[in-house]
Amino acid sequence: MAPLPRRRLELHHPLLRRNESQAGQNRDHFHRHGLRTINLLSAPGSGKTALLEQLAHRWPRPPIGVIVGDLATDNDARRLQRAGARAVQIRTGDLCHLDAALVDQAFSQLDCSGIDLLVIENVGNLVCPAAFDLGEQRRIALLSVTEGEDKPLKYPALFKSADAVVINKIDLAEAVGFDRCIAIANLSAIAPQATLFELSAHTGKGLDVLIRWLDAKAA
Amino acid sequence: MAPLPRRRLELHHPLLRRNESQAGQNRDHFHRHGLRTINLLSAPGSGKTALLEQLAHRWPRPPIGVIVGDLATDNDARRLQRAGARAVQIRTGDLCHLDAALVDQAFSQLDCSGIDLLVIENVGNLVCPAAFDLGEQRRIALLSVTEGEDKPLKYPALFKSADAVVINKIDLAEAVGFDRCIAIANLSAIAPQATLFELSAHTGKGLDVLIRWLDAKAA
Repeated sequence: MAPLPRRRLELHHPLLRRNESQAGQNRDHFHRHGLRTINLLSAPGSGKTALLEQLAHRWPRPPIGVIVGDLATDNDARRLQRAGARAVQIRTGDLCHLDAALVDQAFSQLDCSGIDLLVIENVGNLVCPAAFDLGEQRRIALLSVTEGEDKPLKYPALFKSADAVVINKIDLAEAVGFDRCIAIANLSAIAPQATLFELSAHTGKGLDVLIRWLDAKAA
Repeated sequence: MAPLPRRRLELHHPLLRRNESQAGQNRDHFHRHGLRTINLLSAPGSGKTALLEQLAHRWPRPPIGVIVGDLATDNDARRLQRAGARAVQIRTGDLCHLDAALVDQAFSQLDCSGIDLLVIENVGNLVCPAAFDLGEQRRIALLSVTEGEDKPLKYPALFKSADAVVINKIDLAEAVGFDRCIAIANLSAIAPQATLFELSAHTGKGLDVLIRWLDAKAA
């Protein structure tokens, strides 16, 4: 059956135009505050919050700032505050992605004095968040080995839009029979522009390489 | 920040009305063909296709029919055909969920002679598919232990709408430190209506109980 993109594009069109304008304002705003800003996207349960807990502990100039989106609960903001981050929760209700206006509202609640890294943890969803620029400098797509090697092929828009791809939970790769070569071949086909990181947010392995990249991008 | 559901509801309203009407027609259609029909929903990589491969092998009256939705690729339909199912792929392009009209079109391509179980494998997404009735008899939400215990709290609409919840990948529970008691408490709070199954589509453990439930619902 042929792809049926038109209906959704028509729905989103005025929304996307408004979003682009607000995203530009956010980008200026972040720049004036001296912030490097990351939009972090993944499926539910891939380990976005676990990665940010590690980053909160290891970032060379703490604290980091986090704006975190979920449909419901403020569990993730509380987890990140316990890890030392300054975190503001957005509860989207039934909205399947963050947009630039929601991020702008949340940013006004964040004390960003002394912060140079702001991560926006998007709603867990490999489809809808891809179309919405939040004003970030860099976009990172996270993928865990337990989800299989084929996700870049099945959710191409998100991976094509990423500056970096993180493969998480590499400590489980053997247990789940993850085929690293196939995963990397799929990523190379869909997202050749993206820098690749392989790490475990659980054990901490590989995190230093990602942190050096984030820090260099900041300079 | 307060939930912001209105914008999305306004967008979806005419779509949802049209969808409900088509879903009713689908339900009549499936009933006339003597089919029990399941709508299977989960995050990306939770193991929907692996579960259906097992079901294709073990269903007492093969073959099963499957309509499978993905943004891109027909990988899943081909996997399921190799497992003995009659499978039709829907490629949604950038649409984040199946709807009743897409399922109706795909159903017209399925030879359902001799089939009594039809499973609709939705797009991997814990948000958008929840609002769209496809004309199914029963809705199953799938959750894997690698995603953590809190997903029912964070994606309540989907779990509240499920007749059954399957916890998959129980063979990995110990390796990922999955806390079964917390997961079941969260499910009981959000989805007390749902029958719970715990299984591994990888090893096959627990599948017989789900198959008996599907078969009894059919009688």
